[in-house]
Amino acid sequence: MKVDLVIFGATGDLARRKLVPALYELEAAGLLPEGLRVIGVGRRSLAQEAYLGGLEEDLHRLIHACDAEVARKLLERFQYRQLELEANALQSLSDTLAPNALFYLALPPTAFIAASNALGEAGLAREDQGFRRLVIEKPFGADLSSAQALNDALHRYWREEQIYRIDHFLGKETVQNILVFRFANTLLEPLWNRYHLTQVQITVAEEIGLEGRGEFYDQVGALRDMVQNHLMQLFTLTAMEPPPRLESDLLHDEKVKVLRSVRPIQPEEVPRYAVRAQYRGYSAEEGVDQNSSTETFAAIKLYLDNWRWRGVPFYLRTGKRLKRKHTEIALEFRTQPQQLFRSANPDERLENNWLVMDIQPNECLNLIVQAKRPGLELHTHSITLQAHYRRETDEGLSAYATLILDVLEGDRSLFLRFDEVEWSWRILDPILKAWASPSGDLPTYAPGSEGPEAQHRLMEEGHRWRPL
Amino acid sequence: MKVDLVIFGATGDLARRKLVPALYELEAAGLLPEGLRVIGVGRRSLAQEAYLGGLEEDLHRLIHACDAEVARKLLERFQYRQLELEANALQSLSDTLAPNALFYLALPPTAFIAASNALGEAGLAREDQGFRRLVIEKPFGADLSSAQALNDALHRYWREEQIYRIDHFLGKETVQNILVFRFANTLLEPLWNRYHLTQVQITVAEEIGLEGRGEFYDQVGALRDMVQNHLMQLFTLTAMEPPPRLESDLLHDEKVKVLRSVRPIQPEEVPRYAVRAQYRGYSAEEGVDQNSSTETFAAIKLYLDNWRWRGVPFYLRTGKRLKRKHTEIALEFRTQPQQLFRSANPDERLENNWLVMDIQPNECLNLIVQAKRPGLELHTHSITLQAHYRRETDEGLSAYATLILDVLEGDRSLFLRFDEVEWSWRILDPILKAWASPSGDLPTYAPGSEGPEAQHRLMEEGHRWRPL
Repeated sequence: MKVDLVIFGATGDLARRKLVPALYELEAAGLLPEGLRVIGVGRRSLAQEAYLGGLEEDLHRLIHACDAEVARKLLERFQYRQLELEANALQSLSDTLAPNALFYLALPPTAFIAASNALGEAGLAREDQGFRRLVIEKPFGADLSSAQALNDALHRYWREEQIYRIDHFLGKETVQNILVFRFANTLLEPLWNRYHLTQVQITVAEEIGLEGRGEFYDQVGALRDMVQNHLMQLFTLTAMEPPPRLESDLLHDEKVKVLRSVRPIQPEEVPRYAVRAQYRGYSAEEGVDQNSSTETFAAIKLYLDNWRWRGVPFYLRTGKRLKRKHTEIALEFRTQPQQLFRSANPDERLENNWLVMDIQPNECLNLIVQAKRPGLELHTHSITLQAHYRRETDEGLSAYATLILDVLEGDRSLFLRFDEVEWSWRILDPILKAWASPSGDLPTYAPGSEGPEAQHRLMEEGHRWRPL
Repeated sequence: MKVDLVIFGATGDLARRKLVPALYELEAAGLLPEGLRVIGVGRRSLAQEAYLGGLEEDLHRLIHACDAEVARKLLERFQYRQLELEANALQSLSDTLAPNALFYLALPPTAFIAASNALGEAGLAREDQGFRRLVIEKPFGADLSSAQALNDALHRYWREEQIYRIDHFLGKETVQNILVFRFANTLLEPLWNRYHLTQVQITVAEEIGLEGRGEFYDQVGALRDMVQNHLMQLFTLTAMEPPPRLESDLLHDEKVKVLRSVRPIQPEEVPRYAVRAQYRGYSAEEGVDQNSSTETFAAIKLYLDNWRWRGVPFYLRTGKRLKRKHTEIALEFRTQPQQLFRSANPDERLENNWLVMDIQPNECLNLIVQAKRPGLELHTHSITLQAHYRRETDEGLSAYATLILDVLEGDRSLFLRFDEVEWSWRILDPILKAWASPSGDLPTYAPGSEGPEAQHRLMEEGHRWRPL
């Protein structure tokens, strides 16, 4: 199959550090179509040899035990084109392009609309002889209205089915693991509802700080950078109904249904539903405004007004510079209707059961149950049934590699459909608005800690954030 | 508290190998009442010194790192009395006895009735000033009618509340673990029924053979020796409803309710509900009849005609000289209502979930679930969530020690009430009768194997015995 992958922003960070190494992985695994060409597009004047030389250097630096033969085979697919992102300029591309083409916008989000328009005006979005697909990366807007504006612009020339919105955070493996775990096991589904669960906690904790992204991050904050996309993905995968089949649109329908079931947060309720905080020392970071009130920690509480989840709070939180890197989805079961074993030790309240899916850094399932503590007395204690199923260090394709493969194959399951993005912004918009007002308080937390004490303010009676 | 523990059969195997070491354990743990005396009763003429010397030798031989001081303290409690099991002779005991007394019949079952009568006639069962308790060990009869006859005889002088029928197999820890696991965890109870489970398998596999008990065993066989008591205990604990409180009578009520719910096996149905077999070489064992048709392996299928379990077969099996020592309770969950992941690999049927409670040699919980096999394709594979909670080698009191303590404290929870014994025999009586007929076939199996192929004959469609 003849396919051209056109990377806009070919000399940029994303292209060089993520896309080219991902293509190397696919080449090494023999998964790239024979007829695939890669056209790097940039504004810079750059000789073909210089471009390829730079890519080769990158590969040897970034890839452990880089195979020179694989690198050579991959680079033979590459060419560099110096082009402005304008319709006229792009027309010249049109003539040499294969019938099937992917356009990967490895550009700053501010350039998305112009790029989409230029491609459209040049006629490159038309699927006359093959497929034409547009790949963009988050952020998809900075709030509801800018996301809608971006989308309207994209749709001027592209049908929704041509647009691939990447959220690489989850990757194929993790999403599919959650789906398999939920829907290939009959012992979970009967328990996965308000009758048996009392709360759900989703945590994406980062140990790292800004990592040189200070200027960008300070404009964005944790809610936009992580909650709107990554945490909402974990949330919808956890809360959704089983789809009739594992087809992309059916999956997205179920995810959107979850988002549309979320009880809207009223402006005056925001302090009871959302907590923000900033780690101490943040304002002294490079690129950060001295008086910044950008949050580096965000926690929210969501209620789903639907048959399955009514009354069960979903707590979501994320933060930078926390105690450790750790992503988990934790579900707490209700209390026993009768504590048969209480009398043996009246001080000790029986612990509830928890199901905890560890997602990062290792994928691991934990079921925390009660067993008898060995000994004469009838005391109970918690034990954990555990199964590791994948470690971060395990072999396997990276998230980017699998996603590029999906774009090539036209499988949109793991990309975001616009209504997902939109409904996610709808949920968060009242919080964004409240936090934008300069009057709000902004608790701080110590770097390397569990986050701000204020996060517990969200919790319903009897609930408490799990320790990191 | 002044208590006398009177052991009949004091020079016999059970007393010397089990009871005295158990008393040593309790002494070492400081759990014996200060005023406890132990009166060993035997028919043999034996000087006090010779008796104590023999016990001391036993202790040092049987107990690892036996503490001489503990042994001394324990043996100070002991005395030997040479007595016939006759009312007249026992009257002499009456005068010196403490108000509270336990009578432990460490005797062959053929002596139970005579001993019970003699104690009764001598007035020793009367609780005028304290408690009087009778402890007997299985077998409690050899079939329904002999069990009823034994019980009638015991009840001539003893109330049911005075009688402690020991089934040491379960011991305190295991039984309570099953109860805690079932009733302290809310994630199991909703699944523990016909709506979510398709079958239950209970296996008590022994690696050992007759161990010198050939003559006894050949009269008894696997059904009487193991199924009627041990397996029925595991069965009732697995199938019972939660009791209102953890009180002895309430527990027994629930267990009896299970036994009374078992669908009676009609004589002509026996081959479809029960399988027996004999290991090859059994008839050449010492003490065994050359033409013996005694079964060393028994498997049965039970249906419970009640609201919770209707339609779910319970498969029970036990055997000697099998592949390994292993006791487990395994519950299989129903198949997914829809196989979302089938298309990825049409040859591979999704495995069902299993919950497996390992009971011997180690206590361990296993939950077998499906996860995604790492890789690009959407294939699933089984993984096991596991928690060990107690190993055979762990410290802790032996079953005998905890049961003796329970008799001292009057806690009958872990002893059998007569109606349990009776209903268990009622269930098995049709099988015993069918197997007593000389015409039945008797498959054989290789020592060290998984047991006879014929065991699979019992299984409903889609079911198969788990490998050992």
